[in-house]
Amino acid sequence: MVEPVTTEEKTAEMAATADLPTLKVALLGCGVVGSAVATMLVTNADDLAARVGARLDLIGIAVRRPDRRRPDVPVDPALFTSDADTLVRSADIVVEVIGGIDPARGHILTAMEHGASVVTANKALLAEDGPTLYAAAAEHGVDLYYEAAVAGAIPIVRPMRESLVGDDVVRVLGIVNGTTNFVLDKMDTTGAGFAETVEQAQALGYAEADPTADVEGFDAAAKAAILASLAFHTRVASADVHREGITEVTAADVRAARDMDAVVKLLAICELQRDASGTPSGVTVRVHPAMIDRSHPLASVRDAYNAVFVEAAAAGELMFYGKGAGGEPTSSAVLGDVVAVARHRLAGGHGPTESAYADLPVVPMGHAETRYHISLAVADRPGVLAQVATAFADHDVSIETVRQRILGEGDDSRAQLVIVTHRAPDSALAATVEALAGLDTVDEVVSWMRVEGA
Amino acid sequence: MVEPVTTEEKTAEMAATADLPTLKVALLGCGVVGSAVATMLVTNADDLAARVGARLDLIGIAVRRPDRRRPDVPVDPALFTSDADTLVRSADIVVEVIGGIDPARGHILTAMEHGASVVTANKALLAEDGPTLYAAAAEHGVDLYYEAAVAGAIPIVRPMRESLVGDDVVRVLGIVNGTTNFVLDKMDTTGAGFAETVEQAQALGYAEADPTADVEGFDAAAKAAILASLAFHTRVASADVHREGITEVTAADVRAARDMDAVVKLLAICELQRDASGTPSGVTVRVHPAMIDRSHPLASVRDAYNAVFVEAAAAGELMFYGKGAGGEPTSSAVLGDVVAVARHRLAGGHGPTESAYADLPVVPMGHAETRYHISLAVADRPGVLAQVATAFADHDVSIETVRQRILGEGDDSRAQLVIVTHRAPDSALAATVEALAGLDTVDEVVSWMRVEGA
Repeated sequence: MVEPVTTEEKTAEMAATADLPTLKVALLGCGVVGSAVATMLVTNADDLAARVGARLDLIGIAVRRPDRRRPDVPVDPALFTSDADTLVRSADIVVEVIGGIDPARGHILTAMEHGASVVTANKALLAEDGPTLYAAAAEHGVDLYYEAAVAGAIPIVRPMRESLVGDDVVRVLGIVNGTTNFVLDKMDTTGAGFAETVEQAQALGYAEADPTADVEGFDAAAKAAILASLAFHTRVASADVHREGITEVTAADVRAARDMDAVVKLLAICELQRDASGTPSGVTVRVHPAMIDRSHPLASVRDAYNAVFVEAAAAGELMFYGKGAGGEPTSSAVLGDVVAVARHRLAGGHGPTESAYADLPVVPMGHAETRYHISLAVADRPGVLAQVATAFADHDVSIETVRQRILGEGDDSRAQLVIVTHRAPDSALAATVEALAGLDTVDEVVSWMRVEGA
Repeated sequence: MVEPVTTEEKTAEMAATADLPTLKVALLGCGVVGSAVATMLVTNADDLAARVGARLDLIGIAVRRPDRRRPDVPVDPALFTSDADTLVRSADIVVEVIGGIDPARGHILTAMEHGASVVTANKALLAEDGPTLYAAAAEHGVDLYYEAAVAGAIPIVRPMRESLVGDDVVRVLGIVNGTTNFVLDKMDTTGAGFAETVEQAQALGYAEADPTADVEGFDAAAKAAILASLAFHTRVASADVHREGITEVTAADVRAARDMDAVVKLLAICELQRDASGTPSGVTVRVHPAMIDRSHPLASVRDAYNAVFVEAAAAGELMFYGKGAGGEPTSSAVLGDVVAVARHRLAGGHGPTESAYADLPVVPMGHAETRYHISLAVADRPGVLAQVATAFADHDVSIETVRQRILGEGDDSRAQLVIVTHRAPDSALAATVEALAGLDTVDEVVSWMRVEGA
C-alpha cells in the first residue's frame, strides 16, 4: 500500500496527456443520448485520453437547429452545425445517435468512405440494413461498433461478438424493452389492466405519448434481429422476426401466470434449431409475451431494467442485466465503443467484422417449438377432459400438466381447466387452441400464452 | 426467409476453410479445463476457422506425464509432450491452463519473448505478478488475454477492459467463488452449520478435499485483485486485498440474516473512494462474508453460480451472471480469447494493454466504509439501550435501525438487540463491537457481520 497521491501530483500526471496525439470525433445528434455523450467527452477528457493513448477532440455536433441554446451541454456553441455531411468527412470517429433510417444511413456510409470508424446506437438501421453498413466497414477497413443499439448500458454486443465467439450459442431470451417491462411488472404487482398501466407509465415518463414502437414490439424486434445475427453468425433482419406486442395481455393473463408461480414478460427469443443429426438447420427469431417461472433469473428483472439470458453449449447459462435506456446509461456504451475504436486506430488493426458465415435459414414461426399455457372455461361433466385431451392428441401436442377447478354447483356447474403443454411446433399449438374453441363443451378459451425458460 | 441449406452444401462451405491460413496453438496443461479446450479446438475446428479467418492448428499439449492415456481427449497422442519450453517457442498462440505461479510464469514469458500471444486462466499468477506479464506483452507487442481467470464462463474481464472503459466504475460486488456460494446457499436453505455443509459440498464434488483456498477466501481475493485493477486502472495485487473467509459464519449468522430478509454471501468488493472535492483518492479491495438484502440481484445467485454486480457512474447498475468454474464453462471463455487474439494476429494490431494510469492507493481495511449488523444478548432493563447507543455514538457510528426482542419474563428476563448501522469506517465499527462486548449490560455479542448492497 502506498501513500495517497496528492491532487497536485494527479494534475501533473493528467497534464501529460496534453502531449498525446489527437483523434477527431464528430457527433451526429444531440438529444438525450447525444447530450450525455458530448458531456462525457468533455468532462472526462483527461481520463479518456489516458485510457485511449490519444486525446479525443470533439470537432463538431450535427443537429437540425444549430442555433438553439443548449445550456446543459458544456461545449463551445460554435461546435454545433447543421452540415453533417461536411462534418463526417473530416472525422476519425463518427458517433451517430440520430436514430432512424435516413439520413443516418447516408452519413454513416459517407463517414466510412472517408476513412472514419463509426459508433452507432441505431438499432432500427442495423436491423433494417446492417449488411450494407458491415460491407462498407469491411471495404474501407474501419470499425462499425454498436454496443448501445441493444439493451443500452448492458455489455451484450461485445460479449456476443467476442467473448462467446469460441462457443456455440443455442438460445437467447432477452428482456430488451424497458417500457414494456415496466408495464408488465406494474400489471403483475398491482393487478391493473394494460391500458390503465400504460397511462401510468406515460405519466412517469416510462412510455412515449405514442407508445406503439414499444408496446407493439417493434423496438424489441430490431434488437432480436441484431442479437440473432450475432448469436448464430447469420443475417437476420427486422422483417424476419415474428412479432407480437403486449397490447392484448390482460389482467386475467397476468393472474393466470401468478397462479402458476410465473410472470409475464415480453421476450426477444432467438433459438438454434438442429436437424436429426444434430447439425444446425435454422434459427427462430421472435418477440412475444410469455410466461416464465418466478425462479428463472429473468423473472426478477423489475421496473424498466433489461436483461439478456444466453444459453451456450459450453458456457451454459449466462445473464447480463442493467439499464436498457436513458441518456447516461446509453452514453456509457457509446463511450466504451469510442475508446475501443480509438485504440484500434492507434494500434493498427480493427475489431471483428460481420460474421455471417453460418448463413442459417430463418424458420417460420409455425415451425418454432414452444410451450403453451391454456386456460379454458368448460362444463363440469364427465367426458369433458377426454374431449379436450383428444383435441391435443389430434394435433400431436403432449400435455405436461392439467389442473381443474370446479366453479359453482349443481347441473349448471362450470369448471376451469388450466393446461400446460410440452414443447411442440407453434402451428400445432395454435391449431389446438382453435380446435378447443370449437368444442361444444368448451365455453371459452379464457387465455392462452406461450411459456418459456424451462 | 430462405430454404434450409442441405448438409451437403454446408459441408462444401466448411471445406472452403481448408484454404485459410493457419495459426499454431500450443496448450499448456490438460486437466479439466485443458481437456475441454483441446476437445473444442478439434471438434469445432471448422466453425472456429470460419470465425477467425484462419485455421487453429493444435501443435502440442504440454503435460507432466505425456505417456498417460487420455481417451477423452480426441487428439493424436503424439501431440502430448513434457517439453513445454520447446513447445511455446514455435507457437503463435499459447494457452496456459496449468495454474499456479511456477512454472506457468516462465512458460508465458518465454512464449511472449518468442512472439506468441498468450491466453491464460491463471488468476493466482495474474494477481501475484500481473505487471511483469503485462510489461512483457507490451514489450513484445503481443496479446495477454485472461477472461477465464475471473468468474469462469462469465464475460467480465472483457466488459471491464473494453465495454466500461468510457465510464467510471465506482463499485464492484462479486460472488466469484462457486464453492463458498454453494456452501452459504445450502446453509441458508437447510439451516445447517458450516462444517456439516462443507462435508456435503465435498461429497457432491463442489468442494475440494482441502477446501482452504476457497473457504478462506484466497481464490476470491485473487479475483478481487484482478477486478479492482481493471475497474480502477490501478495495480492491485492479492497481497493488497483484505481477506476473511467463511469458516466462522455460523448457522446463527445465517438465521440473523434471514430474520432481516437478507442472505449471507462471500463477496469480493472493490470500491472507489473520493476526497472532499470528489476526486478519486483511493480504492478498497476486500473479500469477506456480508449480508445482502434478498431483493438485491446478487441475493438470487444460487448454488455454485457466480455473478459480478458493477456500479458505474453513467451505466448505473449492471450484473453479469453464470457459471464460475468447470471444464466446459471455463473453456468457453478460453476459446473466446483464443479467437480474439487470433483475429488480432490476422488483422494486425492487438487488444488493450494494461491500464494502470490512475495509480490510486489501496486504502487499508480500517478506512473502508462499511455497515454492520450486530446482534446482542442484553439484560432487559431500563437504560440498556441508552448505554448501547452511547457506545455507538462514542465511535461516531450512526445507527440505522434497532430492533429489540424480549426473551423470558420477570427480573431475569433478557432481550436481544439487533442493530444495523449506517456507513462508517470499518475500524470505528470494529472498535464499537469491542466496546459493546465490554459493557456490563451486554451478555454477549451474538453475531456481527457487514451489510452490503444498500
